[in-house]
Amino acid sequence: MTLGTVTLVGAGPGDAGLLTLRGLRALQQADVIVADRLGARAVLAQLADEGVQLDAEVIDVGKLPGHHPVPQDGINELLVSLAQEGRRVVRLKGGDPFVFGRGREEQLFCEAAGIEVEVIPGVTSAVAVPGLAGIPLTQRGIAETFTVASAHDQIEALGGGRDHTVVLLMGVNTLGHSAHVLAAGSRGADCPVAIIEDGFGARQRVTVGTLGTIAHLAAVRQVRSPAVVVVGDVVALSPHAGISPS
Amino acid sequence: MTLGTVTLVGAGPGDAGLLTLRGLRALQQADVIVADRLGARAVLAQLADEGVQLDAEVIDVGKLPGHHPVPQDGINELLVSLAQEGRRVVRLKGGDPFVFGRGREEQLFCEAAGIEVEVIPGVTSAVAVPGLAGIPLTQRGIAETFTVASAHDQIEALGGGRDHTVVLLMGVNTLGHSAHVLAAGSRGADCPVAIIEDGFGARQRVTVGTLGTIAHLAAVRQVRSPAVVVVGDVVALSPHAGISPS
Repeated sequence: MTLGTVTLVGAGPGDAGLLTLRGLRALQQADVIVADRLGARAVLAQLADEGVQLDAEVIDVGKLPGHHPVPQDGINELLVSLAQEGRRVVRLKGGDPFVFGRGREEQLFCEAAGIEVEVIPGVTSAVAVPGLAGIPLTQRGIAETFTVASAHDQIEALGGGRDHTVVLLMGVNTLGHSAHVLAAGSRGADCPVAIIEDGFGARQRVTVGTLGTIAHLAAVRQVRSPAVVVVGDVVALSPHAGISPS
Repeated sequence: MTLGTVTLVGAGPGDAGLLTLRGLRALQQADVIVADRLGARAVLAQLADEGVQLDAEVIDVGKLPGHHPVPQDGINELLVSLAQEGRRVVRLKGGDPFVFGRGREEQLFCEAAGIEVEVIPGVTSAVAVPGLAGIPLTQRGIAETFTVASAHDQIEALGGGRDHTVVLLMGVNTLGHSAHVLAAGSRGADCPVAIIEDGFGARQRVTVGTLGTIAHLAAVRQVRSPAVVVVGDVVALSPHAGISPS
């Protein structure tokens, strides 16, 4: 039997309008779509609402109420076995497949099994979610460098001042610790911070404070995941920066 | 007269297939497109080749042979005056408008003149170009943090080791200095480096070395801008990493 193919598609941050043209084409040509994460599912639902017909079977490997997600090994094996059945498989991932997406792992696993893999990059939430809230990650004269980290990471080793923007993904639960560490460095306790909840969803909310106040504000406002945290002087460029929630 | 609008659109890294669905829609509805940078012009040319009809007038404010680019102040004023004529203006920028794109400056300038501005994020070259070369910016167990900088920046203040990926944009001319500074830190001279020239173009070429060897390799191979430089252990995941150019 002819082997199928696997296409890793970045679904973007959860707005079907931010899917790429190649990404849409791959979905339309797919026999089966393996989707996980909020972003990927939301995009499929929006496409259906807009009347975009997809003929593919959809397999959800993400978290479902009462069910555990399929472990990574299981996803890798699923992709290979679907392609070995001769099917055109799209692996749809939130954001970009190569930014905290484990896409390269899946690609290498499939290629080791002799499956041809194509990668279609996507709009990463790390850039798009702050942008939607009016926060550029760089701005001439204000910041010329940015770092993206998941919260449990090498924040301690991160140098730089307020002109070096920091984006924390999945950082709500460890926000107090991260803010404390960053404030102890050269950024200081009055460095601006924004938390953007549900970036492209109906419940988008932006909370602005400083490294010294943000953990308290987040507790008072009951900030919840998914959220993107931005630290640095670029936060002051947001129209939300004038608001002082209490 | 009714005021027009300005839509800042990220064109992506230079492949029309990586334009977003909303980005394409904005181009199709535009009266005038103000384009700069290689990426934006390349996308318009590819759309034309694919038979996508755009009715808009195109104004090129980027570099042309024998001409200087329009300065930023001039672009800001152009956007406002076009919108004041009642036109729907698309400002098409390579990559994402808010990553080294000066998009927020343009947005604030237009909004100060009472013009409504919409922002449509794009696929940033900083992520997509390494991805195309098989280099994920993060990979579980190898790197969980990445920093994007333009080359003249705060490389000196940047901490972290090889598990903290560094992406340098516009970094070819200052590569020797950047590599020296990064090698002197905890990454060390044998930390892997890749240079990806012309990421989405016909002349794509990947040069892989280490912080200790890359400046020499770049000189021997006559590496040229535009290029994206990636530093860190994730480079070893590239299929190009096995090649030892000399």
